[in-house]
Amino acid sequence: MRVEIWSDIACPWCYIGKARFEKGLADFAHRDDVEVVHRSFELDPNRPKGDVGPVIPMLAEKYGRTLEEARQMEANVASNAHAEGLGYLADGRDHGNTFDIHRLLHLAKERGRQNELLDLAYRANFAEERSVFDAEVLVEIAVAAGLDEAEARTVLADQDAYADAVRADEREAAELGANAVPFFVLDRTYGISGGQPAEVFTRALEQAWQAHTPALKTIEGDAEACGPEGCEVPRR
Amino acid sequence: MRVEIWSDIACPWCYIGKARFEKGLADFAHRDDVEVVHRSFELDPNRPKGDVGPVIPMLAEKYGRTLEEARQMEANVASNAHAEGLGYLADGRDHGNTFDIHRLLHLAKERGRQNELLDLAYRANFAEERSVFDAEVLVEIAVAAGLDEAEARTVLADQDAYADAVRADEREAAELGANAVPFFVLDRTYGISGGQPAEVFTRALEQAWQAHTPALKTIEGDAEACGPEGCEVPRR
Repeated sequence: MRVEIWSDIACPWCYIGKARFEKGLADFAHRDDVEVVHRSFELDPNRPKGDVGPVIPMLAEKYGRTLEEARQMEANVASNAHAEGLGYLADGRDHGNTFDIHRLLHLAKERGRQNELLDLAYRANFAEERSVFDAEVLVEIAVAAGLDEAEARTVLADQDAYADAVRADEREAAELGANAVPFFVLDRTYGISGGQPAEVFTRALEQAWQAHTPALKTIEGDAEACGPEGCEVPRR
Repeated sequence: MRVEIWSDIACPWCYIGKARFEKGLADFAHRDDVEVVHRSFELDPNRPKGDVGPVIPMLAEKYGRTLEEARQMEANVASNAHAEGLGYLADGRDHGNTFDIHRLLHLAKERGRQNELLDLAYRANFAEERSVFDAEVLVEIAVAAGLDEAEARTVLADQDAYADAVRADEREAAELGANAVPFFVLDRTYGISGGQPAEVFTRALEQAWQAHTPALKTIEGDAEACGPEGCEVPRR
């Protein structure tokens, strides 16, 4: 069974939701038969790449709140993160365009290091408030995730690298009706929006498991194939 | 869209079918939105690991043919391979238990090198008749595919490494009704058996594309999530 998770590194509920999902998955009997794929979603795709600044004033402006109220919003999120055992500083991480991080996550996916890189990027952004909008920080966490430094630098320097892969993920999110993240899709059949409690994920996994492996529609007839009894003799 | 291909390295129609599928995929307009995953299927899982020998006498015995007739069967397969531009010696590759190769392919999957390793394993087995039942040959092709030599050796030496992943693939094949390979599954909706002509794959991809991204069933209500308009304020 496959679970796809659309998220953005700038999204605190994605960070928290990932931890809750993983707890829910740990309680699911068939957890070893679940493959998790992370997909790209940008919360603020139109923000210029260089436009990076502290999140608190951005939140205050976005929600029409005072700076103190914006700080309280972050503190509320932090307490939710802490309840999941996650580090979360509420002092003022940076906010910016996450396209480069998503491109790097696609390189990591190809190299089998996607989950490692995502965890390190979340930790850098929320628990350490290191700026993930700084290419050098991204290179550091890429290397820590097991990626080749030169390869990570090449991808970061080339704005086209994995750009199509990011856009394809975002198109799919739109087609699936996801307009907020985290968004979890189980076997392309069930959708779960938001950082739900762990037990919701466990129940959803159990529900999806029941519906798993439906009968396939067969395309055309048989062609040459090999089975335990041997290979068919070619007819062409 | 995702295509899963169950195959065995010992299966000539899997080798040929992979090339035909890739030609069909190249003619599919949305080819860049297709993700291909290779899954394990053993044709001869009960053969003891050390029981390795030339394929021609094995074919003769299995089909109750003379050695010359078995040679002719291989020559027929070879001519199909050559028609796809694939190398194929019909002189007598080895036959044996492919479990170790499948375990190694799962390591390669985790490292983003699965397709590379599979191509090299097919080429070694069919085009070069190098014994893929020899651990040293497997290490050579693993390194050529971009895997770390020490890691490949560790996996080959530990019979439990990725054993569960191979068994899980085989269980899924059985659940999906596949009893011969190659077996192609498009988006867990359409099944295609055998090394069909390239145009069959193109048409099947087009058909599956139409049915892609169905409406998801929503699990429970919304939880905290972030969208372009901002993050919801936590209610818990």
